[in-house]
Amino acid sequence: MSGLRAPGATVMEARRVTVQDVETAAGRLQGHARETPVLTCGTLDELAGRRLYFKCENLQKSGSFKFRGAYNAISKLVSSTNQKPPPVVTHSSGNHACALALAAHQLDVTAHVVMPRNAPQCKKETVRGYGGKVYECTPTEQARVETMERIAAEEGAVYLSSSQHPDIIAGQGTMGLELLRQVPDLDAVITCVGGGGMLAGVSTVMKSLNPHVRVYGAEPELANDAATSLAKGERCPLSYYPDTIADGLRINMGPVAWPYIRDNVDDIITVTEEEIKNAMTLIWQRMKLVVEPSGVVGVAAALSDSFKAREETAKHVAVILSGGNLDLLKLPDLLSMSEHV
Amino acid sequence: MSGLRAPGATVMEARRVTVQDVETAAGRLQGHARETPVLTCGTLDELAGRRLYFKCENLQKSGSFKFRGAYNAISKLVSSTNQKPPPVVTHSSGNHACALALAAHQLDVTAHVVMPRNAPQCKKETVRGYGGKVYECTPTEQARVETMERIAAEEGAVYLSSSQHPDIIAGQGTMGLELLRQVPDLDAVITCVGGGGMLAGVSTVMKSLNPHVRVYGAEPELANDAATSLAKGERCPLSYYPDTIADGLRINMGPVAWPYIRDNVDDIITVTEEEIKNAMTLIWQRMKLVVEPSGVVGVAAALSDSFKAREETAKHVAVILSGGNLDLLKLPDLLSMSEHV
Repeated sequence: MSGLRAPGATVMEARRVTVQDVETAAGRLQGHARETPVLTCGTLDELAGRRLYFKCENLQKSGSFKFRGAYNAISKLVSSTNQKPPPVVTHSSGNHACALALAAHQLDVTAHVVMPRNAPQCKKETVRGYGGKVYECTPTEQARVETMERIAAEEGAVYLSSSQHPDIIAGQGTMGLELLRQVPDLDAVITCVGGGGMLAGVSTVMKSLNPHVRVYGAEPELANDAATSLAKGERCPLSYYPDTIADGLRINMGPVAWPYIRDNVDDIITVTEEEIKNAMTLIWQRMKLVVEPSGVVGVAAALSDSFKAREETAKHVAVILSGGNLDLLKLPDLLSMSEHV
Repeated sequence: MSGLRAPGATVMEARRVTVQDVETAAGRLQGHARETPVLTCGTLDELAGRRLYFKCENLQKSGSFKFRGAYNAISKLVSSTNQKPPPVVTHSSGNHACALALAAHQLDVTAHVVMPRNAPQCKKETVRGYGGKVYECTPTEQARVETMERIAAEEGAVYLSSSQHPDIIAGQGTMGLELLRQVPDLDAVITCVGGGGMLAGVSTVMKSLNPHVRVYGAEPELANDAATSLAKGERCPLSYYPDTIADGLRINMGPVAWPYIRDNVDDIITVTEEEIKNAMTLIWQRMKLVVEPSGVVGVAAALSDSFKAREETAKHVAVILSGGNLDLLKLPDLLSMSEHV
C-alpha cells in the first residue's frame, strides 16, 4: 500500500488511517521525534478573547512537523524487511525534503530528494547536510514528478509523498495525541492546510478520541482550495500556483487527505496576507519564536473575526505552529509593524 | 535593606543573599513567572563537543529573565506592608524597564521608569503598555540617576536597581534552582554578565546546593570588565560605554554583585562580536528561537576555543538564553551568514 504512486493516481485503494495507526506511529517516534512544548501568551489570549495553546512544531527536529510523518514512514519501511531497506525518494522544495533527509539519515536509509532548481539554496544545503542526495529539476510539477519517477525506477526507491500517504498522515496525527495530553479541556484545534496531511492526521485523532473537539483548517485566501472544497463537498484544486507569502501552503490539498478533511473537519478559515504578516509579527515579537509564514496561518485564523463569529464558546483552543524554516534575511519583508506591537 | 540607594553608594550594609532567599523567591514566583523550558539542539551539541542545555529565558514573561527579580522584589515589598504599597522607580533602557512595569502591573503597584531619550521606541511603548509611567531623560548615567532620585523623592517611590539589589539577585537565582531540577548531571553553567545580578544569583545556588557545578560568566571582549575584575581580584569598571552589539551587556558589573562573582565564579569567558553574530545565526536558524544579541553571548562562550580548553571534561553544560527583546527589522545586521548555517 505504500510504494510508488504518482500524485495524480487514484487513491481508492488506500486504507483509511485509524487512531490505532497513529498510536503505532507514536511508538515509533518515541525517543526520536520531540514531544514539542505547548506555550501560551497573555497578549495573544487578549487579542483572541480566549486561551490559545501553541504547539511548537517549529521546535521539532528538522524545523517542522514533517519529521513526524517522514520518520514514521521510513521506520515502518525498515522494520518491514529483514534485508537492507530500499532507498526512499520524494520531491519537495521545502520542509518535507529536510525532514525526509534527516529521518532517513537517522535510520540509515538513503534519501533521494528532487528539488526545483529555484528552491532556496539553504534548503538544498540542509538536505545535503543530512546526507540526502539532491536532484535539481525544472521548477514545474511535471518535471518534479518525472524526475522523481525516473529516480524511483533507477534506484528501486520507495516514493514517500509529503502528505498523500497513510504513513505520513499517521505520523502527523501524533501531534493530536500529544495535544490531548498537553492541553486541559481542549475545545478546538486549528492547523494550517496545504496538502492536508497534518489536518487529516490530527482530525482523525480528535474525532476518534474526543469528538467534541472542533477541528479547523486554516489557509490563505489566495490559496483557498480546501475552503472551497469543503463548502462544495468535492475537491476543487486551484489550476494555478497562488502567490501567498505562506509558501508551504501554495500546493493543493491532495486526494488522499481529502476524505479525512471532508468527514472530520468542522470548517476551514481563510486569512489575508495582511493577517498573516500581523500574526508573524506578534509571534516573533511577543512569543520570541521563529515561525515561518505558513506556520502562523493558524494563528491568523484564531485571531480572525470569522473564527470569533464561528466559535463563540470555545475557551481552550490549540494552534499548531507548523514550522520555522525560512530565510532570515527576508524577515523585514514578512513583518507588519502594526499597532499591536 | 531595600529602599532608595543611588548606584554608586557603598553596599557594605547589604546582607548577603543566601540559597534560602532564592527558595523564598521561588515561592513568590510560583504561578506568576514561567518555569521556562530547557531545549537542546543536535547541531549545537556537535559544534560544542558536548551536550548543551538551553534555558529559554527569552520565553519568560516580558521577554527576559529580568521578570524574576522584578516580581520577587515588588512582591516582597507588597507583602511587607498592610497598607497600600509604595510605588517603585528604576532607570533602564531595556529589559529591566519592561519587566518592572509588568511585575508592578500584576501586583497593582505603580511603576515609574526613567528611560534615556534614545532608548528604542518599542521598549518605551512596551513599558507604557504594561501601565508603567515613562520619564525620558538625557542619555547619560548622571541624568538617569538624577531623574530617578527626583522621582523617588517626589513620589515616595522605592528604587529597584536592575541588578544591584538583594531581592533582584535572589529572584534571578531561581533559574539556578530550576536548572538543577531540569538538567540531569549538570557539570557547568554559563550565564552572560552585564550588571552581574543573574550571575550572582545563579552562582549562589550552585555553590550552595551543588558545589561541583562550575559556574562561568560570559561577556563581549569589548565589555570585558568582569573578566578583568576576576583576574585582578578587584572590581575594574570600564570608564567608557563599550560599542558591542550585545547592548544589554554594555553596563559595568556592579558593586553589589561583585562579591558573589569574586567568590563563586570559576571563570569569565570573553567572546568577539563575530562570535556573537555566529551564535545568533545558529540559535535563530537551528533552534528557531528569537534571542537578542546579549542573550546568545553564553552560547558564543560555550562554542569558543577558550571554553573548550578550560573545560575539557564537562559533558552537560547549561547555557542561559537571557532574553529575546530586539528590533526585528535590524535583524539582517545582527546575523552572520557563515559556513555553519
